[in-house]
Amino acid sequence: MTILEETIAAIRPADPAAVAEARAHQDRLTKPRGALGALEDVAVRLAGAAAVNPPPLPVPAALAIFAADHGVHARGVTPWPREVTLQMVGNFLAGGAVANAFAAQAGASVTVVDVGVAADLDPAPGLTISKVAYGTADLSRGPAMTPEQAVAALEAGMAVARDLVEAGARCLITGDMGIANTTASAALICAFTGHDAAVVTGRGTGVDDETLARKVEVVREALRVNGLEPEWNGASGTLAPASGVSALETLAAVGGLEHAAIAGFVLAGAALRVPVILDGVIAGAAALAAAALAPDVVDHCVAGHRSAEPGHAVALDHLGLRPLVELELRLGEGTGGLLAHPLVCAAVRVMHEVATFDSAGVTDKEA
Amino acid sequence: MTILEETIAAIRPADPAAVAEARAHQDRLTKPRGALGALEDVAVRLAGAAAVNPPPLPVPAALAIFAADHGVHARGVTPWPREVTLQMVGNFLAGGAVANAFAAQAGASVTVVDVGVAADLDPAPGLTISKVAYGTADLSRGPAMTPEQAVAALEAGMAVARDLVEAGARCLITGDMGIANTTASAALICAFTGHDAAVVTGRGTGVDDETLARKVEVVREALRVNGLEPEWNGASGTLAPASGVSALETLAAVGGLEHAAIAGFVLAGAALRVPVILDGVIAGAAALAAAALAPDVVDHCVAGHRSAEPGHAVALDHLGLRPLVELELRLGEGTGGLLAHPLVCAAVRVMHEVATFDSAGVTDKEA
Repeated sequence: MTILEETIAAIRPADPAAVAEARAHQDRLTKPRGALGALEDVAVRLAGAAAVNPPPLPVPAALAIFAADHGVHARGVTPWPREVTLQMVGNFLAGGAVANAFAAQAGASVTVVDVGVAADLDPAPGLTISKVAYGTADLSRGPAMTPEQAVAALEAGMAVARDLVEAGARCLITGDMGIANTTASAALICAFTGHDAAVVTGRGTGVDDETLARKVEVVREALRVNGLEPEWNGASGTLAPASGVSALETLAAVGGLEHAAIAGFVLAGAALRVPVILDGVIAGAAALAAAALAPDVVDHCVAGHRSAEPGHAVALDHLGLRPLVELELRLGEGTGGLLAHPLVCAAVRVMHEVATFDSAGVTDKEA
Repeated sequence: MTILEETIAAIRPADPAAVAEARAHQDRLTKPRGALGALEDVAVRLAGAAAVNPPPLPVPAALAIFAADHGVHARGVTPWPREVTLQMVGNFLAGGAVANAFAAQAGASVTVVDVGVAADLDPAPGLTISKVAYGTADLSRGPAMTPEQAVAALEAGMAVARDLVEAGARCLITGDMGIANTTASAALICAFTGHDAAVVTGRGTGVDDETLARKVEVVREALRVNGLEPEWNGASGTLAPASGVSALETLAAVGGLEHAAIAGFVLAGAALRVPVILDGVIAGAAALAAAALAPDVVDHCVAGHRSAEPGHAVALDHLGLRPLVELELRLGEGTGGLLAHPLVCAAVRVMHEVATFDSAGVTDKEA
């Protein structure tokens, strides 16, 4: 088996016994049943993923920011110069980006991974160089990556997850940097969910109406050129993903190198039973690829937030994940995942620290 | 002047220069304009409240849980025995409640304040005894408090805020414990916003349909008996608060002792220019009273979360506050405010730690 196949084979679904135990445990705690709302589900999800109740505290957390460039940048889908990917890698390494400030707040480490920046980077503390290519090819003219490149990027992401867990991380947070990567994300989300480009494609970091229209057209071209146009299902009256294309082929055709790396990162985290907090639309698109490769991976994921990008909500719906933070962030870098980390910690702490009605001598009206 | 009058007189609105400076500062940071969504507004709000940019980091934070009982408990508005207020005070002091776990996660101190528990409490570390009465009178039969009691509870809350700030707190978080206090909250929200009881009254910690119907009727009776029924405004075609009743009279008539104390806590925080994170529907109702006494107090508040209680959304709309966390919590205790604290910290850290386009050498497409 390849490393990818071994990793996929190691992923288990949520453990039903741990899930049941966590639910019963929640109901004994000194609070009305269900009073912690969606946070109760988070604690139960982590118990299922870890196959133990209470689940381990998700600390320390480690953010990995996967950086890569995109051939589709040439199509004018963003006003930002491609060089900003490289410049922001420098900013991350110098500690000056929003992701650094949020990571400091969350107590998370930051690792930057060059999986496909279109320039050579000098070695630096906190930088892992796993370059697969100097950016992807233009997905609107043909496949963005060869299947071999996609596998190499998946493996690069898996290696980062393994290294971080080996170094002690008990929670992984996805991050990304890649100018034009919301275009590739939109194409991936259309391809994996069968939605139309106009529904899924958004303004990314903030494009004008003209650029948005062009971006939608580019996503449509990418799907057409790569044989990934959603197909009309007359029976259900809905669009569905193109048939006969594998998950790996889809990822290679319209994904970015950072999408593939994040998919690998998520798969390896799940295989190691370490929960993964997904950031925004790029992580959502990557998680769709991971889930297409190994459906049980979703049981190990927490949706950190929902970004302003319309495709993100589509991806989360498809994955069946409810986001924890909904504050219209549209930055990427892992910022939404980092904001969610203390909420996930709070949810799990409840399972370790809160007294039961019995132990605290509090009357339980529901008993 | 009384202490209450002095406190109100000391409250200033947001400083326009600091607000403008914070907005301009945000736009120079290495991120697309507006990419942090609602968190940018939080940082700007705190700059305006503190009258300086960047605003001080809101640490350390201090949670105060104001505990009190309610005469309206006798009307059968909740299935929980009244004794649970006292029992939960014991649980807070023993560190076994959800608020304790969330406070540990946020790094916040916990102070429990007996402002009206219907039993005598023994002195204990972490407990402030400022009992005004052994619970309120039944608000559905007449005023819950005398104006003197309301003022005493307001002053108790103010004293707690002052003590915590003197001890070093740079962020105050409101908490509450009081079986039946969502009933008083609903009455306060109706009275201050002019909404109908059926719109505002909810299931609190989880009551059945029959109890909910009784609760709505009790809120209506409370408004009628106390001369606080919303009045029909023929010109605008909407309901409006009853005219000719002062804010203090309204608070005394249908509030709880913890509502009055939280209102005082919020007013004193604002007067000291220390930001206050509001918890759920009890805090929302108390903040309406505080805002009726001193409208500028709102500039110093952050809405920690929006609870499942329908009246909470009504109160937040009226205050013009957007909640940070929306996870259907319905516990109180300060839990929603505590969850929001790391988000507020993250928003402010950005202003202290993130590089500008110029300093980081990142190309700004919007310059």
